Amino acid sequence: MENCSDFYDTPTDQLPRIDNGADLKKLPLEDLPKLAENIRRTLIRSLSNTGGHLGPNLGVVELTIALHRVFQTPADKFIFDVSHQGYVHKMLTGRWDRIHTLRTYEGLNGFLLRSESEHDCYGAGHAGTAVSAALGMAAARDLLGGKEHVIAVAGDAAFTCGTTFEALNNIAETTKRFILVLNDNEWSIDRNVGAIARYFHALQTSSAFDHIRDKAASFVERTIGKSVRDIAGRVEIGAKNLLFPNVLFEKFGMRYYGPIDGHDVGLLVRTFEFLKELDAPVILHIITEKGRGYEPAKANPMKFHGLGPYKTETGETPPSSSPTYSQLLGAYLTRFSQTDPRLTAITAAMPSGTGLLEFQKAVPQRYFDVGIAEEHAALFACGQATQGLRPFLAIYSTFFQRAYDMAIHDIGIQNLPVRLCMDRAGLSGDDGPTHHGLFDVGYLRHVPNWIFMQPKDEEEFIDMLWTMANHDDGPSAIRYPRGIGTGALPKDEPQLLEIGKAEVVTDGDDIALFSLGGMFSLAEKTRDRLVELGYSVALINARWIKPLDTECIERFARKCSLLLSFEDAVLMNGFGSALVEHLNDVGIVCPVERIGWPDQFIEHGTPDVLMRKHGLTVENALAKALKHLPVRKSNALAG
Amino acid sequence: MENCSDFYDTPTDQLPRIDNGADLKKLPLEDLPKLAENIRRTLIRSLSNTGGHLGPNLGVVELTIALHRVFQTPADKFIFDVSHQGYVHKMLTGRWDRIHTLRTYEGLNGFLLRSESEHDCYGAGHAGTAVSAALGMAAARDLLGGKEHVIAVAGDAAFTCGTTFEALNNIAETTKRFILVLNDNEWSIDRNVGAIARYFHALQTSSAFDHIRDKAASFVERTIGKSVRDIAGRVEIGAKNLLFPNVLFEKFGMRYYGPIDGHDVGLLVRTFEFLKELDAPVILHIITEKGRGYEPAKANPMKFHGLGPYKTETGETPPSSSPTYSQLLGAYLTRFSQTDPRLTAITAAMPSGTGLLEFQKAVPQRYFDVGIAEEHAALFACGQATQGLRPFLAIYSTFFQRAYDMAIHDIGIQNLPVRLCMDRAGLSGDDGPTHHGLFDVGYLRHVPNWIFMQPKDEEEFIDMLWTMANHDDGPSAIRYPRGIGTGALPKDEPQLLEIGKAEVVTDGDDIALFSLGGMFSLAEKTRDRLVELGYSVALINARWIKPLDTECIERFARKCSLLLSFEDAVLMNGFGSALVEHLNDVGIVCPVERIGWPDQFIEHGTPDVLMRKHGLTVENALAKALKHLPVRKSNALAG
Repeated sequence: MENCSDFYDTPTDQLPRIDNGADLKKLPLEDLPKLAENIRRTLIRSLSNTGGHLGPNLGVVELTIALHRVFQTPADKFIFDVSHQGYVHKMLTGRWDRIHTLRTYEGLNGFLLRSESEHDCYGAGHAGTAVSAALGMAAARDLLGGKEHVIAVAGDAAFTCGTTFEALNNIAETTKRFILVLNDNEWSIDRNVGAIARYFHALQTSSAFDHIRDKAASFVERTIGKSVRDIAGRVEIGAKNLLFPNVLFEKFGMRYYGPIDGHDVGLLVRTFEFLKELDAPVILHIITEKGRGYEPAKANPMKFHGLGPYKTETGETPPSSSPTYSQLLGAYLTRFSQTDPRLTAITAAMPSGTGLLEFQKAVPQRYFDVGIAEEHAALFACGQATQGLRPFLAIYSTFFQRAYDMAIHDIGIQNLPVRLCMDRAGLSGDDGPTHHGLFDVGYLRHVPNWIFMQPKDEEEFIDMLWTMANHDDGPSAIRYPRGIGTGALPKDEPQLLEIGKAEVVTDGDDIALFSLGGMFSLAEKTRDRLVELGYSVALINARWIKPLDTECIERFARKCSLLLSFEDAVLMNGFGSALVEHLNDVGIVCPVERIGWPDQFIEHGTPDVLMRKHGLTVENALAKALKHLPVRKSNALAG
Repeated sequence: MENCSDFYDTPTDQLPRIDNGADLKKLPLEDLPKLAENIRRTLIRSLSNTGGHLGPNLGVVELTIALHRVFQTPADKFIFDVSHQGYVHKMLTGRWDRIHTLRTYEGLNGFLLRSESEHDCYGAGHAGTAVSAALGMAAARDLLGGKEHVIAVAGDAAFTCGTTFEALNNIAETTKRFILVLNDNEWSIDRNVGAIARYFHALQTSSAFDHIRDKAASFVERTIGKSVRDIAGRVEIGAKNLLFPNVLFEKFGMRYYGPIDGHDVGLLVRTFEFLKELDAPVILHIITEKGRGYEPAKANPMKFHGLGPYKTETGETPPSSSPTYSQLLGAYLTRFSQTDPRLTAITAAMPSGTGLLEFQKAVPQRYFDVGIAEEHAALFACGQATQGLRPFLAIYSTFFQRAYDMAIHDIGIQNLPVRLCMDRAGLSGDDGPTHHGLFDVGYLRHVPNWIFMQPKDEEEFIDMLWTMANHDDGPSAIRYPRGIGTGALPKDEPQLLEIGKAEVVTDGDDIALFSLGGMFSLAEKTRDRLVELGYSVALINARWIKPLDTECIERFARKCSLLLSFEDAVLMNGFGSALVEHLNDVGIVCPVERIGWPDQFIEHGTPDVLMRKHGLTVENALAKALKHLPVRKSNALAG
């Protein structure tokens, strides 16, 4: 495995191919590395078509093999944090044949899903949930008298996440049988470190260890007295770069083993065989390498954490055309920061995803990456805002759900000028239900003091960011989609938008289309079709979720037969609901037809496929409109 | 101070009374204990009328004096976690005169509020926010070139809260000037411990300490080698009952001092004088006693954490009449648990507040208190639910905002039968905006898979709990208010309610009143007034927020001139909005007038006062109704 940079294009038919735990247990131990090789080749080839989290999965091949070798799912429970590293687990639990369908509509999901397989005992897509959920399973087992093993697998990044600590704080008093695997892949492993790791392992798993430990303690105590023994405790060194060494976990009442080489499958098997017999909650610290076995992924771990299709031989991805919304965020916050010394940017472990890398390079002292810690990120922004800074908080819509209390209790009640940039708002496509940002309209609109907007394209996005940068009276939020919009070029100088003022793009008398954000193109097409049918159609780019442009809504509701709303969010408590609510409150009778997502969790797939399936189409919009409109000359063309 | 059980009824006019930092700095050091005595007497007397968080404030008298002696607000920043321990701070920053107005309408808030005083640099009401917010302030100071000190004060309970860890994880790389006071009041302090604490303090603040430390390290290394030195680290003992000793904080890159006696004001002053000069983030661990100086509070710390009015001499509170909703929860979950071995109950540090104490006593093995860790609580419930347990998760409405992501990402997407009991839903009264549970209707209704209800009285509450106990198809939630409802006695045997079926209490043809939960009494009175005025009035107890009883809504909307909704929640995205949304979608034209809370954060005060102020009254309901109704015989009586 040491030099395997080109193994991915050699044939796999000489290698073992095992897709279930029972067969895996029969494979000679010495063949496990060959199985690992096959899994790696298959992943590298398959993901070059589907895209996906290649790096993390290449890092856990041996770990996952060892887990399925020693334990037996579905009886035993594996809970993978975030679960983007669950592809190998899928391959080893009957889904090898379908791994090429990953992240495609009706294919395998890119994360674990309870509904996909009985071997997926817990689904996830957000970090920091595994230890807690696994502890719930262990508590259930203990209560129900079960014998199964519960193994949580969490990366080192999960330990920047408060939920993981909340769970750690509860393990020791909840159960005596619990295995937590800390998959540490930030730490690059070299021969020396590997040697020390093996030494530690040998020391700690030997039966002599407890004895040595006690002896050392009493030796220190006898020699230099109790108080100095405490001082000696304080000077405990551990590996310098290791953020969470053994003593930390022991404070939480867990027995710590490791670090060991997470790519030594034999060692992993022996270690799990040992750990499964223990009657104490344990943490096993393994060192793995993201992208292991694929040079391009090793060379660029950030890119290969998760990506689209690539060339197998080189790892090259097709060049992107226009900049994404995220990249524009980074570019323009950087630009604004040149004239506003109080502007800061905060991310929760997503410098690349949120586009803040450029900002980080340009103004590092005003850039803050706090780890996978959305709650802290929001509170940290609050603290900054109280002191006159102008923090931009860039968090995906779905991840901001973690900081919801802060939106109310801290940012909202204190009316602090925190600027929330919700990336990946709306459908997230192939990532699926855990990543769709469909709930933010519903969860933020009713929180007092916030203003909240969504741009129809990139040009407007920059105007909105500029408007936020100048809004010091309270909190502001913007939601914008993944990827690229229309590609509309920003103006040379961004423009301040009037708060609560919609843009009337075309006026009309029969029907008014109120479009929120990127649904504008769908609304435009619908307008064109309705115009063809002979109707007088108003098209409004709503811009503001809060405050609503009530004057505009009322004006069109008074003169039109119908309002038709478009939004990339759930319909319930959505933007269209806000129109309905307002019209009711001012006593204007005008029906509102609403295009958006239904009250169900939306599966994964391309936006196009999913929008068609769930009725976010011109055809559906037309059908809804025509129900309310009088027949005109060319109605026969419709539908 | 050692024996002060009866000092609270001796005169205070001989004692110093200082209400600002400048005067405090002039007071002779030896008079500080007398000031502390005066503050205690004043608090004990004053809170006997207003109620409030007596115990926590008696615990921080010396700490707060020392802070204001050494530092200078508003330039320096004190951030109190939860901030229910901020009364002493209020007294020392110009509000001594108004402390008797605490928690009353237009009086002082029971927590810190930025809008109340420039000395309150950060408000709170939920735990675990102080360290993060303070770190944001420190980052701002460093960026803006300020010199002020930032001091966060957090209780030991804040360290069960993930946000605190997220913040700790960021301190060392963010700033070099930061003081975190760990106010540890779980640990009862006695003479021995105090002596050891002083010894530790003397040792650690002396300049010799670093020297001693290095010497000890090299001594260990020379004697028994490097690897044993690591082992010696692992056996570091510390105080047995201390959950988070020094080494933990040092892992987070902070310098740790303590523990010291938090009631020795002179020692505190000297310590802060020392700490303020350091160029490193530090944690000061102090040991304090909840209820210090008041025997009834010391004897019953749980009761005196926060309570209503009491008799100064004895601490007696008036006996409560009917059981509260919370107490009924505890009683009936206990009862249900006798026949359902899979029923469990989970609380996030609120065994008393949520009423689960009875459950804890009856079925301790199925009771889980996870600390102030709502996210973990929800995930832990998920883990249990996947294994066939039937977890009831009892969390206040406002605190469940912390676990919002879990409502979507874990409970919702996986459709797990977690039973969420949201206590303190609706107005929380004298606690104020941080505690009002007004947003849950808005934030939960649009999450797929949930069912969600609210009872009109205690009898229905038990039927709903029983319905939840038997709902295994997915998540269910119930919201219910603080305290006592009508006192309606539960039936001998609870009844299963039909999911999504409202209760039509009286039929009628002119107007239909849809009442959600405890607003039923207001709706009843409104009905009676409308009937007096000659109208035919339907009164519906809605029961279900989701699914809505659409058949019932449609039936009344078709025949009545108006629907009038009542809810103890914000109107925006509220229950009334759900009615409006549904009527729009099915194309029924019927106006809906809505009684509920406006789009602003509601201040503190008695529910009665606040409901009158914000229009949750019979008069307002009548006025709204009559706008839509034809004039009848006795309309002149209305308004």
